[in-house]
Amino acid sequence: MNIDYIVNQIKLKKSFLCVGLDPDLDLIPHHLLSNEDPIFEFNKHIIDATSDLCVAYKPNLAFYEKLGPSGLLSLQKTLDYISDDHFVISDAKRSDIFNSAKMYADTFFNYFNFDAVTVSPYMGFDSISPFLLEDKFVIILAVTSNPSAKDLQSLITESGDPVYIELVKKAKSWSTDKNIMFVVGATCPNEMRLIRDLAPDHFFLVPGVGAQGGDLQLVVDSGFNKNCGLLVNVSRAIIYADNSSNFSNFARKKSQEIQSEMEHILIKKSFI
Amino acid sequence: MNIDYIVNQIKLKKSFLCVGLDPDLDLIPHHLLSNEDPIFEFNKHIIDATSDLCVAYKPNLAFYEKLGPSGLLSLQKTLDYISDDHFVISDAKRSDIFNSAKMYADTFFNYFNFDAVTVSPYMGFDSISPFLLEDKFVIILAVTSNPSAKDLQSLITESGDPVYIELVKKAKSWSTDKNIMFVVGATCPNEMRLIRDLAPDHFFLVPGVGAQGGDLQLVVDSGFNKNCGLLVNVSRAIIYADNSSNFSNFARKKSQEIQSEMEHILIKKSFI
Repeated sequence: MNIDYIVNQIKLKKSFLCVGLDPDLDLIPHHLLSNEDPIFEFNKHIIDATSDLCVAYKPNLAFYEKLGPSGLLSLQKTLDYISDDHFVISDAKRSDIFNSAKMYADTFFNYFNFDAVTVSPYMGFDSISPFLLEDKFVIILAVTSNPSAKDLQSLITESGDPVYIELVKKAKSWSTDKNIMFVVGATCPNEMRLIRDLAPDHFFLVPGVGAQGGDLQLVVDSGFNKNCGLLVNVSRAIIYADNSSNFSNFARKKSQEIQSEMEHILIKKSFI
Repeated sequence: MNIDYIVNQIKLKKSFLCVGLDPDLDLIPHHLLSNEDPIFEFNKHIIDATSDLCVAYKPNLAFYEKLGPSGLLSLQKTLDYISDDHFVISDAKRSDIFNSAKMYADTFFNYFNFDAVTVSPYMGFDSISPFLLEDKFVIILAVTSNPSAKDLQSLITESGDPVYIELVKKAKSWSTDKNIMFVVGATCPNEMRLIRDLAPDHFFLVPGVGAQGGDLQLVVDSGFNKNCGLLVNVSRAIIYADNSSNFSNFARKKSQEIQSEMEHILIKKSFI
């Protein structure tokens, strides 16, 4: 999937919502637990309820690996179930030396057929280069939405810029917005503005709206670009909006609220 | 497993060797491919050939995940096969926000029963804190052995110190050498010396000896401490020493060479 296709989907669906598929056996509705594959069953309902309202899905691998081999089978079934018009992100945050990174790229792009993978940049370029493939994206952690993100990311370097800015500068020398995106947390609007100045054309994957307290309008004010340039991820606030047998209706309702707010924004920005 | 047990094993086996279990279907001896589970069969032979010569095993998750659910089954069988007197490290290099990191900790420590997990520190303390458990270790990437490691790790901060030194300082405030180790590449002896000055008691997991060109004596000169303080990992040079039907003998021979060099060092250091 390429940028043009993603932009087209945003226009068609009037949405730049990414739904995080983070199924947790302790949190999903109890009645699903009697199913043969409750994880897939839960995801199936969430996908049915949100498919027309979002442009991307993002399974966080932690939730699947926790279940061992059966978790990966549930993941595979989930990926098969998602229709081709969605950008599908493996939230894996991997990082390894070249030959191992190449295996991870092979796993996520070829075995599972994801469109994108999140990676942690601590090991530098050769841990990222195996993911730089045509019509695939590597999404590099730049500024994350967690409270301790500043520990390393915001260390000021001798250039006067923080580590995350140095990272974005380097990443721009590694490849283009055609196969690199950045993770920029919704909880960090100031940092997002600085990265947008430096990387006007790159898409940002934005976690942290919803349960983590990020504000959608502030994200748009800080990171919107000519292509929209934002994929705003919401996980818990949608998928755990309710845990009754009616949960998928609540998930849909919450997604509709977000999509509607996004539609207003896209109109106001004359994007649609 | 705690530090005292590891130190005891080093004394008993006269070795601080960690064998990297990185099985690759393209590289393992052809005759194994007809087995029902060639990955496990390969590991089993390597473990039989090296068990008395090494104190630790380190499966790199990339090699197992590449094979999907069946890869995780091979991993589980491998872990079950390793005897309890080995320190077993999940080389996963994970990194995620607190609730996902908690899942990864649960996966590797409880589901798979690893003794330690490698993590990438880019997201800061709350991505690491779920791994800080008694008798378990989080092994934080500090200075890695790959060519691009310097991209971020060696950026000089406003304190005058590079990022990896700032990281080690912070990690020392997060917990002690009782449940934190650092990855320090064999290819970076100068950096290892600086980290050893700052963290005199922590164990280092040292990749990069063998195929990546690091030198064992230089590692010892740079990082040896009162507890030895080093787990030197060798993967390819041992497990792919040969790919005939006789491969496990070659793996044993190579491990014996390394163990013998380590024994000389431990005697010279009056450690045994």
